[in-house]
Formats: sequence, C-alpha cells, structure tokens
Amino acid sequence: MTEKLRINQDRLWQRLMHMAEIGATPAGGSCRVALTEEDRQGRDLFIKWCRELGCEIRIDRMGNIFAQRPGTDLHRLPIACGSHLDTQPHGGKFDGVYGVLAGVEIFETLNDQGIETDAPLEICVWTNEEGSRFSPPMIASGVFGGTYELDYGLSREDTDGTTLGEALEGIGYAGTLPCGAHQLGAFVEVHIEQGPILERQAETIGVVTGVQGSRWYRVTFHGQDAHTGSTPMVGRRDALVSAAQTIKAVRNIAEQQAPSAVATVGRIDCSPNSNNTIAGEVGLTVDMRHASIDILDVMEEKLQEAVNSAAHQEGTEVEIQRIMDTHPVHFDTRCIEAVAEAARQLGYPHRRMPSGAGHDACHVARVAATSMIFVPCSGGLSHNEAESATPQDLAAGANVLLYALLDLAR
Amino acid sequence: MTEKLRINQDRLWQRLMHMAEIGATPAGGSCRVALTEEDRQGRDLFIKWCRELGCEIRIDRMGNIFAQRPGTDLHRLPIACGSHLDTQPHGGKFDGVYGVLAGVEIFETLNDQGIETDAPLEICVWTNEEGSRFSPPMIASGVFGGTYELDYGLSREDTDGTTLGEALEGIGYAGTLPCGAHQLGAFVEVHIEQGPILERQAETIGVVTGVQGSRWYRVTFHGQDAHTGSTPMVGRRDALVSAAQTIKAVRNIAEQQAPSAVATVGRIDCSPNSNNTIAGEVGLTVDMRHASIDILDVMEEKLQEAVNSAAHQEGTEVEIQRIMDTHPVHFDTRCIEAVAEAARQLGYPHRRMPSGAGHDACHVARVAATSMIFVPCSGGLSHNEAESATPQDLAAGANVLLYALLDLAR
Repeated sequence: MTEKLRINQDRLWQRLMHMAEIGATPAGGSCRVALTEEDRQGRDLFIKWCRELGCEIRIDRMGNIFAQRPGTDLHRLPIACGSHLDTQPHGGKFDGVYGVLAGVEIFETLNDQGIETDAPLEICVWTNEEGSRFSPPMIASGVFGGTYELDYGLSREDTDGTTLGEALEGIGYAGTLPCGAHQLGAFVEVHIEQGPILERQAETIGVVTGVQGSRWYRVTFHGQDAHTGSTPMVGRRDALVSAAQTIKAVRNIAEQQAPSAVATVGRIDCSPNSNNTIAGEVGLTVDMRHASIDILDVMEEKLQEAVNSAAHQEGTEVEIQRIMDTHPVHFDTRCIEAVAEAARQLGYPHRRMPSGAGHDACHVARVAATSMIFVPCSGGLSHNEAESATPQDLAAGANVLLYALLDLAR
Repeated sequence: MTEKLRINQDRLWQRLMHMAEIGATPAGGSCRVALTEEDRQGRDLFIKWCRELGCEIRIDRMGNIFAQRPGTDLHRLPIACGSHLDTQPHGGKFDGVYGVLAGVEIFETLNDQGIETDAPLEICVWTNEEGSRFSPPMIASGVFGGTYELDYGLSREDTDGTTLGEALEGIGYAGTLPCGAHQLGAFVEVHIEQGPILERQAETIGVVTGVQGSRWYRVTFHGQDAHTGSTPMVGRRDALVSAAQTIKAVRNIAEQQAPSAVATVGRIDCSPNSNNTIAGEVGLTVDMRHASIDILDVMEEKLQEAVNSAAHQEGTEVEIQRIMDTHPVHFDTRCIEAVAEAARQLGYPHRRMPSGAGHDACHVARVAATSMIFVPCSGGLSHNEAESATPQDLAAGANVLLYALLDLAR
C-alpha cells in the first residue's frame, strides 16, 4: 500500500450531505427512524451506491445489510466496517451514517486505485441501533452477536403495536439470511465520539479500547403528600428532599472514582408534582458507568448507602432496583492495535479511550474480533439536530479505518 | 343563651355522609369538581335542606349561594358562616363541605330550640374554591372581596375551553345578584386544619388569627443536554444537579426561620427526562410562606442567593420569577375573640394559630370582619380521598361556630 493513499474528503462529505437529505429536518438534522419510509430510502440509496461499486448485497432476517467487496483469497472471512443508518427522531447527520458511508468511500478509493485485498471487505448496516422506535436499542446487532434470540428481536413492538418483523416486511427489508450465520473476520466501527474528550484535548482520533459497563437503577422514595402551607417543617416526609440528596450523592460517587467513572440522574418523576403539595413519591433513574466491574460494585454499594441515608434523614421509605446491567466490553487487541498503528502512520494526534456509550460493536465483539475509531464532534453533542463534525476530522477517521482494514485484510 | 346549647353531632355527621354520596369515589372520597353535574347536585341538596329550615336563598353572578335565616332586627347585616361544596378530583368528605353543613346543622339546632337572633344568620357557599377546574382557586370569593373583577372571574377557562360563566349557566347557577353587592356583617369559616398541628398537640380547636403570606417562584436552570456515558464529570452542566442543590437550600431557608416559616419545592419538570441524557433544563416551583412580609423578604433574598450559587457551582444559567405573591391576612380582632371565647366557654383545648393554606375567608376579610375555626384532621391529610376527621371534633368546631355566631349576632 502506498504511504500517500487517502480517501476523498469531499466525496465522503457529499455522500453524508446527500444521505442527510432523506428525512432532513428544518433545524438541519435528519429523521430516519428505524424501518420507516425514510429508513427504507436511506437503505436503498446505500445499496445503490454499493452496487455501483461492484458489491454483493446480503440481507439477514433482522434486516442487517452486508455489502461485500470481493477479496482474492476465497478462504478468508470478510474484514468489515459499518454502523447504522437509522437516526433519533431529532437526530443529526453523522451518528451512525458516518460509519456506513466511510465504508462506501473506502471502497470507491480502493476501486479508483485498483487495490485488491486478500480478504473480502464488507460494510455492515445494523437495523434499529437507536432504539427510539423499537426497544432495546442495538437490537439487530444484538441478535447477530447472540445477545438476543431472533424471535425476541422480531417481536419487539413500537408504540402502535407494529412488530419489528412486520415493519421489516413493510419496507421490504426482511431478508432470508439467518441472523448471525454470516461470519465476520473482524469488525471496525468508526463513529463520532458523542462526548467532548477529543475536542477538549485537540486530538483527532480516539483508539477505542472497549465500552464501559453501565448499570441503571430505579430508586423510588415514598413520603407523604401534604399541604405545603399547613404542614410544619418538622415531621415532613418530603420525597423530593430525599431525591435531591440522592442526586447530589450520585455526583459524589462518580467524583470519588475520578476521572474514569460517570454517574448521572437524568430522569426524575415527582408525584403529585403540584406547586402546593409536598411530594409523596419521587422516582429517579441512576446511570453509573465504569470500565471495571469491581469499581461498579463499589459504586453500587455507595449508592445503596446514599439512598438509605437520604431516606433515613427525611423519614421516607426507599426502594432501589437494578434495572439494567451491561458488562464492560474489552475490544480485540489485534483490532485495537491495527487502529492505533493506522493513526500513528497517518500522523493524527490520537488517544486510547473507552467508549461511554453503547454501540453495535459491543454486540458484534461477542462473535468477531472488533474495535472502534472515534472522531471529535462539536461540543460532544449528539442525538441532536445540531450534531456536527468537520470534513477534516471525518476524513481522518475514514483514513484510519482504511489503513486498519487493509492491515487486517492482508 | 343556655350554657347547655349544643349542635346535634349525629345529625351533622349524617348530613356530611349524605353529601359525600354525591360524587362518591371507590376509595371513600368525593369528586364534586366545580360546576360539574355533581357540584349541581350538591348545591341542590344544600338549598333543599336550607329551604326546609325556612331560609331565603340568594345567588350572585359568580354562583355564590347565600342562605339566610331571618333575624329580628331588620337593620342588621347578616352574620355569616360557610365555605365551599366543590372538591378536588380525588377529594375527601370534609374539606369545605364541613364549613357549609356545620351552618345547616346550626340553623336546625336554633330552630329546634326556638332561638331567634337579632342579626340574620347566613350560610355562604363560595364557587370554585379548589381551583382544580378553573384557576385561580377561591376565584368567586375573590370577586366577592374585590380581589378580582367580575369579568375576569367569569372568563376563566377550564382545559376544554369552557368558561366559568358558561359552566355556571350550564348547571343553572348563574345568579343575578351583583357579586359583592350583598354585604355581610361578619364571616366565620370553620374548616378542617389540613395540617398536623392540632392533632400532634391533642388540641380540638384552632383559633385562626390570620393566613400566612405566600410567595411562589418559578426557577429554571439551563444546562446542557449531553450523553450520560460519554460526558466526563468535569465540565458537565447538569441542570438537575443545580435543582437538587436548590431543593436542599429551600429546606434550609425555612429552617432558619423555624418554627413559623415553611418553604417547599413541590414541582419539578426535567427535560429531556431521559435515563441516559444529562438534564439540559429543569424547572422548579418554590412555595414560601410566613405571616410576616419582612421575613418573606429575607427568605426571598436567601432564595436568590441559593439559586445563584447552585447555578454558579454547576455552570448552569438560572432564571427566577416570582409568580404569585399573596399578602398575609390578619383577621378581625372582634371575630377572633368571639371564637376564642366560645372555645373557652365550651371547655375545648384550643390554640391560636395562623392558617398555612389559603381559604375563601382571606378574600372575604377584605370586605367583612372575618375569622376562622380549625378542627383536627387525621394526619393533617387533605386533598385526598383518605381525608378524615372524628364526629366529636367536627361537632366541637360546629359548637364553637354556633357560640361565636350567636355572640356576633347579638
């Protein structure tokens, strides 16, 4: 491979802007919610581009798309990249779609240069990554990776009662390939960071070593509804005061494990939520993440202590329930090093980092050697129509992906 | 008047239970939301009872009902009692209705004993006290007392867009008497305490000296939506953390003015309120009450400092707006003493106390000599189907009202 080999930055950008027109929103984002007409149009456009580049298309029973560029060695499994084309309802132009279109650009660059690879290369498009229509998110890569059963995946329902399987039929993307039967030699997903670290450090490439484990808890305080005016301060059992103390404690728990832990209360439900009634019941959702299960155990213990203390001080009662537990993912060393070496060779400032967010790569990592590449996004903003990334950074990530794929496909 | 004169405890209780059947809820409460069919039935039953006792009925343009028992002195203004018949959607059997039916019981007791009064006696039923259908609460006593204009009162809309005036027509209670033209010589409202003080102190009668001033504030923190997993703790601008700090500070502000101040956050609105997104915007409503305007000013200053500090520490921005300011009400000395003397004469344990909650009496106090009587309610619970009070305490409050009215009507 030539040291001068680079993808075409403008062509990548043009394809991103072209795809963003499907479901374009007035505020400059895209709305291609999973398995809607817009998602179908996005998939059709992707397949059209891949066919023009000489790819063979396969679709599995979860609607995952595999576009293969043939290799010279018929015995090698495909070396894959990819991500997802669906968006949040008020989504941006880059989350997911970038990882898919970086693959298309790489294929066109290789075609232009007449470069062949030993192993076939492949672009994967995973169905319903966002989870905004069908819960849980990353359902189709989850079936592919063996996290979920096929029947479970196909039977997920949206709020109208339409199943994922019916929605796949509806847009003509219910494939026949058994989900998970199609093996990958490796999978490297390039994605915007969705966090502020690279931007703050003025680095271009995140060499993603794994994904933090995350645990969600539902905490509910039961106090006593009472009139705000006629109930003295002494003897109140105010569930919102217990909740406030817990929100502060959760912040503290993360800071005790600085800088690698994060912990957040993002959701609060207050009842009766009335100006002049002391809150009788307040529910919170606590989200705690760390790359180590041991540290997560410590944080959980501290959370238990904190909610007990918050309840005790206010005379409320508390229930706490762990509602989600996603284990940390450690990516494949060979794939991580392929990415790190590509960034070094291309001269991009880079850092090793875990991903705070979940990605399709987490599930794929269960059945194939996997890693990820991050590029900066403005302000760390994502799941937002204002999501933005520079053409230069997007090109850098695609170049790193190109070099890593060529390395792995040798 | 005879020292042995007492109202009939069982008859009062029977009338309360009879009225409670109108709009009875499965959980043992009543639902007679203002100007609904149930409210009409409640009003009709009240008027039927009053007519049977020989009263003359007047209805004003706000639907307020005045049931008059004639006096012997044609030059005296009526000495009135009363309260309201409407309830919260999940209301109890006593809030408001007790003050009205205590009046009915008193009239029947006086009739039974053949007692005449110099001044006429009167029972007032004020429209839409609860405010759960038409905001603000106490709207009709407010028009009566000159706090609001008639046009404002009649034009209030419910969530379906029906105006209060239309709803009055709908149930046949749009009277012709100009609201406020009907003068009262005095007004004494008996009511359940809606707080725990009397029960905790094992006292039967609250001699209510006035109503605390109350101020409501809307506080909004603006932070930055961000992903809970990929956003480090350092540099977060979490509006919910600022809100939590404010909730704790509000508790503190009241405790600094113990035991007479109360301060509460009862309402919190978090956006986007998602498990895995740091809250970008959180609104709170702060309710602060005290009998002194000077102390309320001090509390307001401390609130301002607290929200600024909560915003500064978290890097959020804050707006604070005073959305309601109800001045403290000091009841009429002559009326307060009539109640205190009645409680003393009847031998009931009693205490002087302010009301923490607003009542129709606050507005009426602007145009007539006014006071209130409280009786205990179980656990201080109100605005709740489980609201409860004992027949003995309810009878005690009605006896105090009887003696106070006879004193004032002499």
